[in-house]
Parts: sequence; C-alpha cells; structure tokens
Amino acid sequence: MNYEEQLREHLKQIGPINRALADYAREREDALAKPRRTLGRLEDCAVRLAAIQNRRRPGYEHRLIVVCAADHGVVEEGVSPYPQDVTRQQIANFSQGGGTITVLGRHARAKVLLADVGVNYDFPENPGILDCKIAYGTRNMAKGPAMSREEALRSILAGIDIVLNEPAVELAAAGEMGIGNTTPSSAICSLLTGLTPEEATGVGSGLDPAKLAHKAEVIRRSIEINKPDPDDAIDVLAKIGGLEIGAMCGVYLGAAMRRSAVIIDGFIAGAAALLAAKLAPALRDYFFAGHCSREKAHRATLEYLGLEPLLDLGLWLGEGSGAAVSMFILECAAAHFNEMRTLEEAMVCDTLEQEKAKASRKDK
Amino acid sequence: MNYEEQLREHLKQIGPINRALADYAREREDALAKPRRTLGRLEDCAVRLAAIQNRRRPGYEHRLIVVCAADHGVVEEGVSPYPQDVTRQQIANFSQGGGTITVLGRHARAKVLLADVGVNYDFPENPGILDCKIAYGTRNMAKGPAMSREEALRSILAGIDIVLNEPAVELAAAGEMGIGNTTPSSAICSLLTGLTPEEATGVGSGLDPAKLAHKAEVIRRSIEINKPDPDDAIDVLAKIGGLEIGAMCGVYLGAAMRRSAVIIDGFIAGAAALLAAKLAPALRDYFFAGHCSREKAHRATLEYLGLEPLLDLGLWLGEGSGAAVSMFILECAAAHFNEMRTLEEAMVCDTLEQEKAKASRKDK
Repeated sequence: MNYEEQLREHLKQIGPINRALADYAREREDALAKPRRTLGRLEDCAVRLAAIQNRRRPGYEHRLIVVCAADHGVVEEGVSPYPQDVTRQQIANFSQGGGTITVLGRHARAKVLLADVGVNYDFPENPGILDCKIAYGTRNMAKGPAMSREEALRSILAGIDIVLNEPAVELAAAGEMGIGNTTPSSAICSLLTGLTPEEATGVGSGLDPAKLAHKAEVIRRSIEINKPDPDDAIDVLAKIGGLEIGAMCGVYLGAAMRRSAVIIDGFIAGAAALLAAKLAPALRDYFFAGHCSREKAHRATLEYLGLEPLLDLGLWLGEGSGAAVSMFILECAAAHFNEMRTLEEAMVCDTLEQEKAKASRKDK
Repeated sequence: MNYEEQLREHLKQIGPINRALADYAREREDALAKPRRTLGRLEDCAVRLAAIQNRRRPGYEHRLIVVCAADHGVVEEGVSPYPQDVTRQQIANFSQGGGTITVLGRHARAKVLLADVGVNYDFPENPGILDCKIAYGTRNMAKGPAMSREEALRSILAGIDIVLNEPAVELAAAGEMGIGNTTPSSAICSLLTGLTPEEATGVGSGLDPAKLAHKAEVIRRSIEINKPDPDDAIDVLAKIGGLEIGAMCGVYLGAAMRRSAVIIDGFIAGAAALLAAKLAPALRDYFFAGHCSREKAHRATLEYLGLEPLLDLGLWLGEGSGAAVSMFILECAAAHFNEMRTLEEAMVCDTLEQEKAKASRKDK
C-alpha cells in the first residue's frame, strides 16, 4: 500500500463523535447537585469529552504530548532571530529533562514524547528521542516546494504511528520545536483562512518588528511561487509546510482514530490543525483549544476552527506548553461530571442522614 | 485581650511582600532557557509567589480551601430562589464527599475544610465539619444590623484561627455555602467600590431576573437603614455582611500572616476580599483572582482590587470551585520557575553533550 493509500485507510477510522452520548451527558450535567449550568465551560467540555471518547464517564488519565521537531530551509531568508542549530540544542535539552515542556508536561501528568522528524542533525542514539527522521529539514519554500509530496505524507504518517503505538490515549496534544516554523505556519494560515500574509504574520519567538514586513513578503512569495492547492492539504503541507507540522497533523489524526480528545497548543499547532481538519472534517469536533497564544494570527485560526480557548495567559512559547497547562481544565471537566452526585442521590443521602440524626437525638 | 485587640495583633503580622525577591525572580525568569517573557502571566505569577512567600523557590504543595458556611436572615425578603435549609443540606452533602468543591478540591490536591460559622442548624457531631458556630445565621439586614460588632469580629477571628491551625499553607482560598449570600456581598461591593446597588446586584444562584430590581431595592434599603461606615470594615461586615463572609475575610488574613498566596474564588469571595484589603491594605499584593465569575459585579470587584483573573470559564457556582481549578495554574507558574534550566546551564550541558557525541563518533 503506498503512502497515499495508507493515509486514506487511516482517515476512514475517524468517525463522528457520539451525539447520543452528548445528549445523555447534558442531561446528567443538569441533574448534578448544583444550580444548572453553574460550571459553565467545564460542563460543555465534559459533554463533549463523553461524545468524543464514546464513554459515559470520560477519561483523562492517559495524557500524551508529542513534541515534533524539524528544521526549515526558509530560515536562510532571515525570518527568525535564532540560528537553526537551536532546534537541535533544545531537543537535546528536552531529552535531558530541561526545557519548559518537560517540566510542564510532568506537572500535567502527561507522557511527553520527543520525535525528530526532520532536525538537521544526527542525534547520537538517545532513548529519549524517537527517530522518525524523514529529511534534514525542509528546503527553502521561498524558492520552491519545502518538500516532496511523499515526504509530506510520510511526516503525517509518522505522527499517526506515534499515537497508534501508545497503549491508551484520552487527552492528546502535539508540541513543536523548529526554528523558523512560524513562517510556514503563517503561510498555511493565510492560504487556508483567507487572511493576507501580513495579517497572518507575527513575531514568532521574538523577531524584530522592523523585519515583520520582510517575513510577510517571504510568505507571500512562497505562496505565489508554489501555488499550493488550498483544497489539497498534502499539497499545502508539501509546498509551504514543515515536517514537524505534518507530524503534528498526524498526531491529531491518530488521536481521533483512538477516540481521544485533541488539545491544540499555540500557533504552529493551529496551522497543523487547519491541515488536519481539511483531511478529516469530523476532526473539528475532537478539538479543544488549550490556550490563546499571543502570536498574532492564533486567535483568528481558532475562530476559523470554531474554537474558544480554555486559557488566555499570554503564553507564546510553543513546545506544547499551553496544551499541557490546559489538560487540568479537562480533568476538572471530566472529574466533576464523573464523581459528583446527582441532586436525587444527594437528597436520598440527606433523608437518611436526617433520620440518623433524629434517631441519635432520641437515644440521648 | 478583647476581640478588637486580638484582631489588631494579628493584623500586625501581615507585612509587605518582599520586592527584593521579586527583582531576583524576574531576573531568573529572564535567564531561563526560553525566549524572554514567552510564558506570559505564568512568569508574573512566579515572580509574585516568590515575593509573597519570601522564598527563592516558591511552594505550591500545601493547598488549603476553607469552605465557610452560614445562613442569612435577609432571605426572608425573597432574594434567593432556594430555601434556607439548602445551606445545611449542602454542607451535609459536602461532608459526605458530595458537592463540587469536594471533587474539584480533591483533584486540585487541596485540603478542603468545612467550617460552620453560622448555619441555622445543629449538625450532629461530624469530624468533617469544623464547629465554629457564632450564631444561627444573621438577622435580616433590611430591617437592622445583620449581626453585632462582636459577632463580626469573632467571625473574622474564626477564619484566622482555622488557617493558624494548619501545619503549612502555600496556596490558600476560601469557599462558601450560604443561601442568600450574594445579597450581603452585593451590598458590601456597592458600599466599598461605589457601584450603585443596581450595578452591584446579579442573579446569584439563579434568581428570576424579574426579581432583580427587588433584590437591589433590598440592598439599597439595608445600606440606608444601617448606615455602615465604609472606612470601618468591621462595621460594614456587622451591618450588611454575613458570618461566612467574615470567616472568609479571616482566612485571607490568616493566609497572609503565614506568607501564603491568597486565591480569590467568585463574587462572595470578592466581597470578603474587599473587607480584608480594607483591614490590611498590604494584603492586596497577596491576592490572585482565581477566575472571573459570571455573577454581575465580580469583574468590577476584581478591577477595583487591581486583579486580572487567571481563568475565565463561565463558572458561577461558588463553594471555592473556581479557586480550586486555578491552583494548578499557580503550580505551573512555580514549577517552571523552580525546575527549568537557565540558558547558561542548558548551554553548559549542550557543550558537554556535544563533546560526548564527538567522542563516541571517534570511538566508532
């Protein structure tokens, strides 16, 4: 089976969320011993988690964050304040327990996997880094396609395979490390949401604002030269994407295949989500927006996907950090739903308690 | 020592937060191995936690939520959709593990204490309920003072004592249960922030909106009849407050005395915070706003206190539920600060790693 066919088979595994369970869950929410709807979005999340997971009591213990890493040929256009080697350095740092996502992932009680899908470096053998390397980074998309169609497909399949290797997944997210990766993300965002390159372009990890116009121009040129077909997500990914963006897209698809909720992290994760939703429209119902990144076009991306972020804490780090922090919100959503008493149960208990109290007073 | 003097002595224990440690913490934040300020409000929280706790590595493991319960004479004015007995029922329910705060508090890894400071019921002996009863509820504040000055002082001292009994406190919050308690909260909010009674009055736990004008009128009358002195927090609490509101105010004061961060839950917690900040202005620097309640005047209360909520999830349940959910945000704030490497440390590790990699290649 070729890559194209493999992906098609995988996509067939993604079904609609179970709306009958959503109805059941809303009824249970309204029956819990609290004034109706007073838990706001925690209730909405619980209802959707049940429908996604196809379970009357949604789970939240099996948490996965796959940090996908790759390099980008477009950095030679001067779109990032950091040299390319920082991708390698940071992945090495993460694999030794350094880095934000390692710390926040641990506190979020998530399994954090590091996947090298396209770093421009041969890591010495390291059990902490999954070797899924497809290429030593992309080519410069401002001069031609970032990668071949086959490479694009393989990056998505790599992400899917990582999730299919897991024993259990209930909440899944993808993080990233890849110097220059807001540039392809903005290109994807512009092409798929209809924002202009200028509207879709932000400072990334801290670009000098004076260079923003240049970055937008690089993005405009990349789209003009490559003419990606907006109706063909693989074509978009190949021409103006990134290997880690493809893998993140695959993580989302794999998670939905497993009936896991999918938590979108920041802006690059949002671009991957746009591609994934294009490949499997049913996926949108599996998405939660972990947080609203400060990166310029993230909110517009979330709005395009019909998502309201769970957190808005001014984060713009990436790596999966915002998704990690938001996992506890989904735990609270599922936990109150699973563990609270209904009003009826509480009243039965109360009657018993009152009778006991009366009896004990008579005894005295 | 009389109650007035006891409180005065306690207040002397509340000092300013340590701004030298805030400076140190900001420097450390900027030195961590991530682009500067990319963790947004998590960084600001970490800096303030260090300054509050007077520690170079802020703690977050010792979490306390004190749920204060009391009844309100003003319910006879028809300001709540629930009968007064629900206060008792819910506290009994909480003490048996039911109720939202019990579940969310457990997931937030907080110690949840239930304190009866003024429920109109004699609970049978129950190790799950702290007996701090001062009265069987307040009197109807629409006809005269809700309680005596002595009762008001005792309610605050009860809250302080609960916190001083704890072996360790790093993150503290107060929750509440008290049918009718948004009415005194709105009265306090109106008097202290300058909102009109109408602006300060919301639907509470679900009042028919047609009865809002009546509720606001009850609040206006309570203020007019009792003429509380806005510069004397005890007078305000006694005349238009509630016993659980006094105890919550005490929990905040006690927490700051212990150099613990104070997390404000919803609207009633906000009213208690207004009183506490009046008693000890330094307390404002100890406050975090856990979330933004949907109850009408909560945002205005937080703005008055200069606080931006950590979460905005449309909760309006009370009990301490929003504070519980937000505790994990403060864990993420402290944890990344404590556990991440600085850029310098990461670079030293990287150099060592690179040398090892080179050496291992030579070996082959």
